[in-house]
Amino acid sequence: MNDKWGIIATWRMAYEGVGQAVQSLKNKGSAGDGVELAVRLVEDFPFYKSVGYGGLPNEQCEVELDAAFMDGNTLAIGAVGGLMDYKNPVSIARKLSQERYNNFLVGAGAEKYAHHNGFERTNMLTTRAKKLWEKRVKAVQEKGLSPYDGHDTVGMIGLDLFGNMAAATSTSGLFMKKKGRIGDSPLSGSGFYVDSDIGGATATGLGEDIMKGCLSYEVVQLMSKGIHPQKAADQALFQLTEKLQRKYSKAGAMSVVCMNSEGEWGVATNVEFSFVVANHDLEPTIYIANPRNKMTEVELASEEWLNNYQKRIHQPV
Amino acid sequence: MNDKWGIIATWRMAYEGVGQAVQSLKNKGSAGDGVELAVRLVEDFPFYKSVGYGGLPNEQCEVELDAAFMDGNTLAIGAVGGLMDYKNPVSIARKLSQERYNNFLVGAGAEKYAHHNGFERTNMLTTRAKKLWEKRVKAVQEKGLSPYDGHDTVGMIGLDLFGNMAAATSTSGLFMKKKGRIGDSPLSGSGFYVDSDIGGATATGLGEDIMKGCLSYEVVQLMSKGIHPQKAADQALFQLTEKLQRKYSKAGAMSVVCMNSEGEWGVATNVEFSFVVANHDLEPTIYIANPRNKMTEVELASEEWLNNYQKRIHQPV
Repeated sequence: MNDKWGIIATWRMAYEGVGQAVQSLKNKGSAGDGVELAVRLVEDFPFYKSVGYGGLPNEQCEVELDAAFMDGNTLAIGAVGGLMDYKNPVSIARKLSQERYNNFLVGAGAEKYAHHNGFERTNMLTTRAKKLWEKRVKAVQEKGLSPYDGHDTVGMIGLDLFGNMAAATSTSGLFMKKKGRIGDSPLSGSGFYVDSDIGGATATGLGEDIMKGCLSYEVVQLMSKGIHPQKAADQALFQLTEKLQRKYSKAGAMSVVCMNSEGEWGVATNVEFSFVVANHDLEPTIYIANPRNKMTEVELASEEWLNNYQKRIHQPV
Repeated sequence: MNDKWGIIATWRMAYEGVGQAVQSLKNKGSAGDGVELAVRLVEDFPFYKSVGYGGLPNEQCEVELDAAFMDGNTLAIGAVGGLMDYKNPVSIARKLSQERYNNFLVGAGAEKYAHHNGFERTNMLTTRAKKLWEKRVKAVQEKGLSPYDGHDTVGMIGLDLFGNMAAATSTSGLFMKKKGRIGDSPLSGSGFYVDSDIGGATATGLGEDIMKGCLSYEVVQLMSKGIHPQKAADQALFQLTEKLQRKYSKAGAMSVVCMNSEGEWGVATNVEFSFVVANHDLEPTIYIANPRNKMTEVELASEEWLNNYQKRIHQPV
């Protein structure tokens, strides 16, 4: 047994889940159990509008969910895409990671697998999400707003006391996406990647741009050369951002968090981005990251920021 | 304009398409047009049982197709997964690569997009493929054979006289796959990756294992350091194969072909593997590759091999 452990996760919404995962990791729980547990809590909370229950629907007002799980010891991957009406996509993805074949299932095939494996059907569209959808449809019609935003994937990397690492992601994807649209979250190398011998990374933002650079795999590859996670994250993210800016004159929002096999962590972002991290040296902490001169600046989330966050997620539609 | 051009493709089945693409590339055609044209010819030929029309169906006797297109100049990606009843998935993928959002669509959403964009519906299940499916169902019931094999993706990397590069893939995936199963072929970094400043790579084999190592992205990353495509392909493929052998005591079949921005090419495989390549120095040529001591040996396909191939693909079911 080692004395190092850790967990890092995208967005403030991961905080409560990370808290519970930390209890589990401290009690010799596995990295896989930790990240699954934490992601499930985010999926279940109805006020997080980009993940699981309460997630915002696609153009047709259907909640289509993407999720993945990766075991850093075996590199086994399970993933679902465009899944409707099941409560915990991350657990279905984890179950799929234990199969020898057919690890990535989408749509009706993913739902059939979930059904055959004892997962319960639930209507994942909340009244609140439906109201937000109706409001957006109206706004798009009236003002011609870009329908796309709200692509906040929860992604986590965990390290347990036995040196095992795991990654998990879950999202409802782009608000108002086309039916069947798959983002980076269930894609190995883009939305997540973890190798227990090295470390792991997970991304959030505009999936269409993240997959142009296989952002998570790139961060892990840099860490494999002994580069510190913070430097690896900055290097990979700003290199991709600049490349896209050269080609398109702009790059989509993207952020990445990572942790190596020593529990050291890093974060990089090209927009304001909140994240949560805990390890053997640090209680679960919410930070705010911002880009500055091709580096990422990190500060503690202030009381004011945290209070505004609570107001924002609960505000009436 | 440069004097270098080239195209490399997985499997013997690409030969006729590569021949036509070469005519186009020599006449200043674009890399994107070349790989799309060549893949379409493979998709249309009814005797290739792992791609397009004539592709083998899933467990439920449905032909579900995966395909992707990537523009090496812009890194724009289009991909479809689990697409039924459209003739040229690669062209739908290329069309998707021109969208700003929703570039990767699966299932009914992908079909809807194809319909809205003027692609024609066709029943992609041939009598021959249905017979093979019936035979396999019977064999599995009687002898308990592993239902999974036949995962020969056509993948291509093209370089045109203007220095543009493009990648394209197309496959019906694992024979007898579960409904909704997505392999590596539509996944950026796993099934394909191309950057015109560096080069491109595309993989074929057991997708579930290829995505454990983001094989195509890894090859391109190695080429970006100035490593010759042949060495890059061998290094990436055998490193992943060995890692999987350590973890699982075996690795799935996998092969990768690649080409850099100078038209130099490479190939690596852990099984017998045929491929086709042409460039400014070489007429379209069919080679057979085999692994030997963590390197890949390449020889010209013999008359005997080519004759046996023709017999095999046309043999009565």
